[in-house]
Amino acid sequence: MKLSLDQIQDQNLSQISEHARNFEFLAESLEKKGIKVEELISKLQELQIAIPSWALGTGGTRFGRFSGGGEPATLIQKIQDVGILHALNQSSNAVSLHIPWDIPSDFQAIKDSAADVGIGFDAVNSNTFQDQAEQANSYKFGSLANSDSSVRELAIAHNQEVIAIGEKLGSKALTVWLADGSSFPGQHSMRKALENTHLALQEIYQAVPEDWKLLIEYKPYEPYFYSTVIQDWGTSFLLANKLGKKAYTLVDLGHHLPNTNIEQIVSTLMTEEKLGGFHFNDSKYGDDDLTVGSIKPYQLFLIFQELVKGFEETKNPPLSWMIDASHNLKDPMEDLLQSVQAIKLAYAQALLVDSQVLQQAQEIHDITAAQEILQDAYRTDLRPLLAEAMRRAGGAINPVKTFRNLKVRETLIQERGLKSIASGL
Amino acid sequence: MKLSLDQIQDQNLSQISEHARNFEFLAESLEKKGIKVEELISKLQELQIAIPSWALGTGGTRFGRFSGGGEPATLIQKIQDVGILHALNQSSNAVSLHIPWDIPSDFQAIKDSAADVGIGFDAVNSNTFQDQAEQANSYKFGSLANSDSSVRELAIAHNQEVIAIGEKLGSKALTVWLADGSSFPGQHSMRKALENTHLALQEIYQAVPEDWKLLIEYKPYEPYFYSTVIQDWGTSFLLANKLGKKAYTLVDLGHHLPNTNIEQIVSTLMTEEKLGGFHFNDSKYGDDDLTVGSIKPYQLFLIFQELVKGFEETKNPPLSWMIDASHNLKDPMEDLLQSVQAIKLAYAQALLVDSQVLQQAQEIHDITAAQEILQDAYRTDLRPLLAEAMRRAGGAINPVKTFRNLKVRETLIQERGLKSIASGL
Amino acid sequence: MKLSLDQIQDQNLSQISEHARNFEFLAESLEKKGIKVEELISKLQELQIAIPSWALGTGGTRFGRFSGGGEPATLIQKIQDVGILHALNQSSNAVSLHIPWDIPSDFQAIKDSAADVGIGFDAVNSNTFQDQAEQANSYKFGSLANSDSSVRELAIAHNQEVIAIGEKLGSKALTVWLADGSSFPGQHSMRKALENTHLALQEIYQAVPEDWKLLIEYKPYEPYFYSTVIQDWGTSFLLANKLGKKAYTLVDLGHHLPNTNIEQIVSTLMTEEKLGGFHFNDSKYGDDDLTVGSIKPYQLFLIFQELVKGFEETKNPPLSWMIDASHNLKDPMEDLLQSVQAIKLAYAQALLVDSQVLQQAQEIHDITAAQEILQDAYRTDLRPLLAEAMRRAGGAINPVKTFRNLKVRETLIQERGLKSIASGL
Amino acid sequence: MKLSLDQIQDQNLSQISEHARNFEFLAESLEKKGIKVEELISKLQELQIAIPSWALGTGGTRFGRFSGGGEPATLIQKIQDVGILHALNQSSNAVSLHIPWDIPSDFQAIKDSAADVGIGFDAVNSNTFQDQAEQANSYKFGSLANSDSSVRELAIAHNQEVIAIGEKLGSKALTVWLADGSSFPGQHSMRKALENTHLALQEIYQAVPEDWKLLIEYKPYEPYFYSTVIQDWGTSFLLANKLGKKAYTLVDLGHHLPNTNIEQIVSTLMTEEKLGGFHFNDSKYGDDDLTVGSIKPYQLFLIFQELVKGFEETKNPPLSWMIDASHNLKDPMEDLLQSVQAIKLAYAQALLVDSQVLQQAQEIHDITAAQEILQDAYRTDLRPLLAEAMRRAGGAINPVKTFRNLKVRETLIQERGLKSIASGL
Repeated sequence: MKLSLDQIQDQNLSQISEHARNFEFLAESLEKKGIKVEELISKLQELQIAIPSWALGTGGTRFGRFSGGGEPATLIQKIQDVGILHALNQSSNAVSLHIPWDIPSDFQAIKDSAADVGIGFDAVNSNTFQDQAEQANSYKFGSLANSDSSVRELAIAHNQEVIAIGEKLGSKALTVWLADGSSFPGQHSMRKALENTHLALQEIYQAVPEDWKLLIEYKPYEPYFYSTVIQDWGTSFLLANKLGKKAYTLVDLGHHLPNTNIEQIVSTLMTEEKLGGFHFNDSKYGDDDLTVGSIKPYQLFLIFQELVKGFEETKNPPLSWMIDASHNLKDPMEDLLQSVQAIKLAYAQALLVDSQVLQQAQEIHDITAAQEILQDAYRTDLRPLLAEAMRRAGGAINPVKTFRNLKVRETLIQERGLKSIASGL
Repeated sequence: MKLSLDQIQDQNLSQISEHARNFEFLAESLEKKGIKVEELISKLQELQIAIPSWALGTGGTRFGRFSGGGEPATLIQKIQDVGILHALNQSSNAVSLHIPWDIPSDFQAIKDSAADVGIGFDAVNSNTFQDQAEQANSYKFGSLANSDSSVRELAIAHNQEVIAIGEKLGSKALTVWLADGSSFPGQHSMRKALENTHLALQEIYQAVPEDWKLLIEYKPYEPYFYSTVIQDWGTSFLLANKLGKKAYTLVDLGHHLPNTNIEQIVSTLMTEEKLGGFHFNDSKYGDDDLTVGSIKPYQLFLIFQELVKGFEETKNPPLSWMIDASHNLKDPMEDLLQSVQAIKLAYAQALLVDSQVLQQAQEIHDITAAQEILQDAYRTDLRPLLAEAMRRAGGAINPVKTFRNLKVRETLIQERGLKSIASGL
Repeated sequence: MKLSLDQIQDQNLSQISEHARNFEFLAESLEKKGIKVEELISKLQELQIAIPSWALGTGGTRFGRFSGGGEPATLIQKIQDVGILHALNQSSNAVSLHIPWDIPSDFQAIKDSAADVGIGFDAVNSNTFQDQAEQANSYKFGSLANSDSSVRELAIAHNQEVIAIGEKLGSKALTVWLADGSSFPGQHSMRKALENTHLALQEIYQAVPEDWKLLIEYKPYEPYFYSTVIQDWGTSFLLANKLGKKAYTLVDLGHHLPNTNIEQIVSTLMTEEKLGGFHFNDSKYGDDDLTVGSIKPYQLFLIFQELVKGFEETKNPPLSWMIDASHNLKDPMEDLLQSVQAIKLAYAQALLVDSQVLQQAQEIHDITAAQEILQDAYRTDLRPLLAEAMRRAGGAINPVKTFRNLKVRETLIQERGLKSIASGL
Repeated sequence: MKLSLDQIQDQNLSQISEHARNFEFLAESLEKKGIKVEELISKLQELQIAIPSWALGTGGTRFGRFSGGGEPATLIQKIQDVGILHALNQSSNAVSLHIPWDIPSDFQAIKDSAADVGIGFDAVNSNTFQDQAEQANSYKFGSLANSDSSVRELAIAHNQEVIAIGEKLGSKALTVWLADGSSFPGQHSMRKALENTHLALQEIYQAVPEDWKLLIEYKPYEPYFYSTVIQDWGTSFLLANKLGKKAYTLVDLGHHLPNTNIEQIVSTLMTEEKLGGFHFNDSKYGDDDLTVGSIKPYQLFLIFQELVKGFEETKNPPLSWMIDASHNLKDPMEDLLQSVQAIKLAYAQALLVDSQVLQQAQEIHDITAAQEILQDAYRTDLRPLLAEAMRRAGGAINPVKTFRNLKVRETLIQERGLKSIASGL
């Protein structure tokens, strides 16, 4: 299945008059405040958020998995799904592959499929937290951190292979999420685990092409429950510094202890020019992998506020923008559409903040005013602006509604069947 | 100092045309969706949030206290401050006193002062967590829970006295926040501490007039750091049930462990008809006592969504609405104005949710739609509606701005001096 | 495979002299303090902790499952494994079955197998958090709480069937862990979900035999990530009270928010005579399901201290003692042996506390002394006492060592193969 | 008041026979396992933990302070108290001063007092989180991080002055705990706050003598409740690296988010040779500042296990060992005695671990064995060993008991009065 521009524009027709009324009022309000609406629209259009290949099917928990219907069973079907999402919101022009869940066999066919729907290949992701059927050694007790050198070598080789796949596809980054850790005190030497990881990453780093980034995730716990080798941004940053200028820290919003001030981590990493990118999602408890913006939308805005300031004030290089969510209950594609909306809305709100006026308030410690400035931006309803940005780019005024009106899921079920299950978690 | 209606209306003049433009657009948008704007405005005007007497001065932490200027040194000055707030937002027509920080000596004078600025007396608060200068026994090791019966009797008598004071002022509720707990395992018998508390509350309960409520707070920790006698809503609810129909649970938003789903507690308590009221504030870590809505505005909306549904679906009696914040850094009055705005905005957003449409989505497990419904209400910018509700009631379109334009703080400093310090924390 | 008394006593021979030296010294030391060692030994021998059938195989996380070898593939094999554990420690004379993972087909054969190794059947566990192959309706959006009455009826019928199975086996309790909840605000009405649950539990309750208990678990999150219907002890307690005298709250140590004071919950539930039993495990972050005592052994002691006091001071009925752990990395049987040791050691330590002396310290607020009393009990090395209790009952002085010396796992792998996988998580 | 060796030895007399029995059995047991008891005793004797001057009086919370009697009102009295503690346990031969709570006026007198009781001066602590009476600018909105350069200069000058004081006393380290942060989003620029802090620390660093250490604390929240400039070990480590080889990270056990794996932070910092020292205390919720070992003794052991391994395996320099507790309820001196016992006991347990055997288990992923090894060390009752180490050094077999038998507090109250209050929190 593939959505055409015409289909989407037809749908927009029925919404255009209400949209125009809202957008015009908003644009006028913003212009009155001296905000350049056209600039905002351009910036919003430029922000493209990659879709992870594993998020197109229903993810499960350890207690079970309840698949929906019409899930993409092959990589080409996953690419088609991203193509549909991108057609709807013009905001997701790339897919982020997870190896070995999505090993391309025929590279040309894969690239053609992607080109056909206007998408490219963002960061490739390695997987050394699950054993594959044919695997010589097990990752049960860790991969890059394992005390057994043959396991480490297996994991290094896998990462090198993932890079090779990414090069053929045109990716420019390798994301390493390392589950390695321990579930019991004494299980391993935390020092040696970190050193093994460092040395193994060095070998992988050498295989990273010069124009690539190596993105290092961190996470405090799960799937191990006592310690994780790269437990926090400090550890990831330590490793990225040791590795060199191609290595960066990647922030997954769900990978923090309760109450962590994530926006401050973002600020610090940008100051140090070591923020590599994001895995966006939302959570209330742990790595819940919920729809972006569904639980803590204000925190998302505060993060974007740091990002916008960081791009103005630091030399941090451009970021990799990715979603990492696990869609247990909603239709995965609707979930992704909601996530992209939430991200772009937070970005738009952050762009609204007048950083000079804010700075003046900060300098005289006028906290009341600083809060009013931030909340004024946050509480302004910018959905018409976002809709206009998408509409002008050829997307839908309301992507979720259009997804439903065009009966995308029903069509996919017809094409793929009700029991089709995506590879992944 | 006292603000007149004229002063405020003068200030509104300069903002009226922009406000009118915004309000008219919003009202039209809402009416198009079938929402009755005038009903919303009435409901918003009816919601009155009591100001705690202790929040008018700068609160401190254990590491220090940095007072501002012009703080109210007497109860009459505190009442004046509440009068100013109420004049500005027409939303805080009552003060909640804390005994012994604010023991009235001349009741008639106090009542006259309050009547003069149009405010009444909400719940009275007892204090058995600090020793007073003349006190025979110490609360160091607990009050109502203390193993020493003479301490318990002192604390019971204090609560009875607070009720007597409240009766003279026209209060209709006693709020009991019991710090009692332990900082070390073994310090006291948790069972006996709970039983002592139950028995002591029974005696206090008997002194509670028939048309009053006894509001029982809960809190997991601080100022004791191992256990608190009334550690959670379950314990408060248990006690309220044992005590009888005048006893209710009071929810302070900051009194929960990390990640607690507070809105669910609200839902359960209303179902059981035992929700008595709120202490509103906001927090990121613990009982941070920050400005309402400054950290987690979406959670506040979700709480109000449960409240609005609860009033429709349950027989829970009307609530006591109070702020409990500690203003360490901002001007306390500005902070309170921001808090009231945040509360009323969350209420307005919750009123916007079409509960029937939401219920339909819930029944068919259409989670995507349910999220869209809630977030549509939350993301609609209802500030013009709130401003209109306040303006029509005689308040300011923008209370914080008007507070500043009218140079309230400067005047208070002139009247009271720079070093005036409020009693309280 | 089955262990004989002789095999174990042979193993004990090599350890007996060192053990005797340690035990004699300890016994003398305790007697000097007025502690009756023989009484302690009896009490330790009496405490029997049921083994959950699902813990005999390797559990997984959502990221994967790394099975070990020789796992029990059938219910009879699981019973054999429990028999081996019980032969080793004489402390686990019952198995707790999980339906439908372990539906008995031939009841007589099952009962004969169990009788053969001296074990009985503890609480039966229902499962309405996973769909079974043939199932008419899905639990994807909840079971007892579901807005769809046909799903609720399915779940009720399943629980009734589990009770019927339990009756045939001689169980005396049904444990209901209800995953039901929501992952997004607005997904369901929290009020209706609770009411549906209450009504459904009422129907199940009617099927619970008079001499049984209905044990209601609570848990704050997972597998749903916004709300759980029975989120905390307060909600479980509320339901148990409404249901009647056969209904009790079950405490799973891993089912709490960060920093929860679990021992206080135990104390309160016993005071209210509503504590039904335990699922023992340990955790650092969430429901980590680690070996009991591997992370927070002092907390375990404090819980047992409340239990011992509770049995002295309240009328709470005898408890169901069960382990609920998920063994991802260790040999499951070794893990269970370690768990039982940790539980019994904590119990022994708690028995050592002189409650009268402690109470005297508490009454005069002598916190230093209270801490010394508790820590003296905790720091006393009671392992020789536990070993003696087990040895005298026919078990091993050191169960884990004996398990290894007798090459239990190797034998099981020989019997069952390396790829045998247990049903369950 | 001053304790003599004779007084303590007299007290020991009544306990010596029971102690001898226990010690001899333990020593024999350890020697049988190949552990060199005399070496253990030496190492235990060598570990000296500095007492903070502010912990000798009762600390308070924001809700109040309940002083005990006989608190040291002057620096000389504080030194006397440390002298008493050291006489009792021979384990606290230094005091750590907090400026300006304890500014020495007559340096020679202070040094003479200290020499008289055999104690020296550990790290000096600066205070830029409270305003002093005469202060030109306020720290209300931060000190080293403040956007106002005159405040920063004041704070820098204060730190330089503290160094100067420390030099006169013989201190070899400056501990900087920086409360600086924000309580509201937008209050300050987190980037500029960090940069200001870095530049200010650079100036302070230049004043740090070559043979000194600059110890940088971190803390996630309190007294600010949205962000703290040095929020975690990563930020402290970042700054210490930028500053140079005299700068180190200091770990305060209470300064972490819920569930943090502190022992892993210790391991990482030692690997990087940047661990500077500790502030020991214990906590259940936040920075509770409770007696060391009173809440999580196993965590303390695990931290010491990393320390012992770290000293073997890394080049991290020797540490500053300090207590930082706030004694709200217990007699502060008893509390400190209990804390020192807990620290040394954890150290002794950690020394018991056979690192080679542990390593072998780790290499073959024998997690069951690794847990047995750690828990065997932890569960061995080493209190007789510690008592012997203290006794041989001239201290008490049981310091708390001896403190009470010698009626230290009663004497201090007689000398200083019941209302004497120590400076500090």
